[in-house]
Amino acid sequence: MREDPRRLTFAIEARDGTARAGTIGTAHGPIETPTFIPLATKGSVRGLDGDEVAALGYQLILGNTYHLFVNPGPERIAAAGDLHGFMNWNRALITDSGGFQVFSLAHGGVANEVKGSGRSGGHDSSVEITEEGARFSSPRDGRELFISPEVSMEVQAALGADIALAFDECTPFHADRDYTARSTERTHRWLDRCIAWHDENGPERQALFGIVQGGTHADLRRESAEFISAADVDGLAIGGTLGRDKEEMAAVLAMTAPLLPEAAAKHLLGIGEVDDLLGGIALGLDVFDCAVPTRLARHGVALAPSPETRWRLDLRKGRWVGDKGPLVEGCPCPACTRHTRDYISYLSRAEELTAVRLIVLHNLTYMRELTTHARRAIQEGRFEAYRAAVLGGAAPWGA
Amino acid sequence: MREDPRRLTFAIEARDGTARAGTIGTAHGPIETPTFIPLATKGSVRGLDGDEVAALGYQLILGNTYHLFVNPGPERIAAAGDLHGFMNWNRALITDSGGFQVFSLAHGGVANEVKGSGRSGGHDSSVEITEEGARFSSPRDGRELFISPEVSMEVQAALGADIALAFDECTPFHADRDYTARSTERTHRWLDRCIAWHDENGPERQALFGIVQGGTHADLRRESAEFISAADVDGLAIGGTLGRDKEEMAAVLAMTAPLLPEAAAKHLLGIGEVDDLLGGIALGLDVFDCAVPTRLARHGVALAPSPETRWRLDLRKGRWVGDKGPLVEGCPCPACTRHTRDYISYLSRAEELTAVRLIVLHNLTYMRELTTHARRAIQEGRFEAYRAAVLGGAAPWGA
Repeated sequence: MREDPRRLTFAIEARDGTARAGTIGTAHGPIETPTFIPLATKGSVRGLDGDEVAALGYQLILGNTYHLFVNPGPERIAAAGDLHGFMNWNRALITDSGGFQVFSLAHGGVANEVKGSGRSGGHDSSVEITEEGARFSSPRDGRELFISPEVSMEVQAALGADIALAFDECTPFHADRDYTARSTERTHRWLDRCIAWHDENGPERQALFGIVQGGTHADLRRESAEFISAADVDGLAIGGTLGRDKEEMAAVLAMTAPLLPEAAAKHLLGIGEVDDLLGGIALGLDVFDCAVPTRLARHGVALAPSPETRWRLDLRKGRWVGDKGPLVEGCPCPACTRHTRDYISYLSRAEELTAVRLIVLHNLTYMRELTTHARRAIQEGRFEAYRAAVLGGAAPWGA
Repeated sequence: MREDPRRLTFAIEARDGTARAGTIGTAHGPIETPTFIPLATKGSVRGLDGDEVAALGYQLILGNTYHLFVNPGPERIAAAGDLHGFMNWNRALITDSGGFQVFSLAHGGVANEVKGSGRSGGHDSSVEITEEGARFSSPRDGRELFISPEVSMEVQAALGADIALAFDECTPFHADRDYTARSTERTHRWLDRCIAWHDENGPERQALFGIVQGGTHADLRRESAEFISAADVDGLAIGGTLGRDKEEMAAVLAMTAPLLPEAAAKHLLGIGEVDDLLGGIALGLDVFDCAVPTRLARHGVALAPSPETRWRLDLRKGRWVGDKGPLVEGCPCPACTRHTRDYISYLSRAEELTAVRLIVLHNLTYMRELTTHARRAIQEGRFEAYRAAVLGGAAPWGA
């Protein structure tokens, strides 16, 4: 990695052990780190529009290249200027490479496996992976689509991301060592192709992050970390499977994080559970995206300071009938300041749209509070105490 | 009807022909008329919470007694104080009697028929209508439920409506004259029972409106109008079938409206299409509820000044691709001031929740603009010109 990334700035402003608080500077404004990134998978964060996401305090959202490639397609988004223009989001934007979803089709259930659930879903033989790239059928209309390092870069250029992610194969937990080794090497060759395309054709102020692969294998992670760190990228991400459970994830991260250049902005892909995110921050990782906080809302689950239930409050349960308290005492979100568990639980069980929205607002507020207070704790040299308090069941604003 | 209603105030402040602008005073604040009433059928207006509905300028919403009776039940709502407390809505509230939905089950498709679509759905023989009331199975859990004038009043008392509606049988279009005559008479006997229960047990500041029935039959409408007008109620509503099409609806309303006491606040039940609503205002009707504006949003349809498509802009159509304009030029809603037809159309076709919400915000803004500007036009003695302009395709704010 360049000492001085060309297409973004990253200043580390405070350190507390290996944790740090910093600011990433982009063409669409600053991103104070550590931060959580809400997913605008298909061009909107569930139930919210851009102004509302900004009002929650978020400075960065993530768009999914695969979904936007399939529909509405990069041409239509480019015709609106870029994804910022299409969805009227004027702050920073990161896009993934599309690889994760394509290889989920190929390997079956990667999305679950990478997170350690160990489930292996069906294998979609219609995805063909070659050195060139991946060929697959559109889930929308069946037409054949092809994605490669160059195509991914081209789509991300059309989306106008402030940070683009290199095209990688996200290897699943069930892949054997040999497959993972070959795949990781191919990911490295793909990175070179991404860089070549991006240097030639990429938007001037679009940063490019490389992705460290290597599965759960220490030597492969080391090789990959070295390769990505030496490449001409503006920042790094950690991808691929992190193992079968939280212990293995912690071990893989503890081994991988120190291999990355200290000065680089670092993104942990797809991780956003409260304890995992705090673990990542402790290791010096800066940005975290995850579908869970918004996805949970659809199932009536609110985030809450309850480690024993993995920070989940299941509002579909009958026990909240008549409960006049807010979802979480002290939470500043519109759901908690205006409504009761009784009402939101009723709405959620009745499948009312308002419930999903109120819980999205709550969960995204909770994640923002979690990282805002982590940042403050780092600045004040008390991050480990903060982390211990949250892991012990304190609310972020009270820890 | 009493000259001076006991449980609300109604002041007519301006007249323009038979149209009038007034203010209904309730324990939860004023309602400036004419006005449209958003439906909070199950305790929330689709995708919004109470504060958001208030921010749109609405002073009155409608809760459905039938739905809230079935789930969550009046006890749970009463435990939160009332429906105001349960859903945190601090402005005025009207509840229907529950009769409309119960008799929809019995007659099949009343909801469509009353509006003149003429469709006759299946008949649910599990609903048993007697002089006492109606017995039916809960669509939620199959348990037997019973609703009568007294039960309806009791539930509406628990809901804490500022305006309760008397329990009536809503006769469908396909009912013959004989059935309609007998039903209308029973509705009158039911009104007497509602009044008796309400006088004895109703909340002190809860107004009670009687409902004029009689189908499309002039003599029955006259009889009913006379009966309801003579009763001890605080206002009146027009219910039941209004015929098979818009012409017949206009004829039934033109015949019925003049039969009602001039000084009374008048509610036209279930009518909210742009032209029908303006027709009702012209006849001196004051408040209008309708599911259409919020229901359309679910199907990707925005309200727009286009009489030729019944004021509907179908965003699911492909023609909006690349259209950089707002849903409706000049509309002050968040969807129109922030987003393009291109984006909202894409979101709606992609089944993104944000689309439903943006279109709900637009459609409710459109209805509010329609009645706010109608009110102003009445105050300025130019209502017919306003109505003609809107019927000719002008936006409410430009007419």
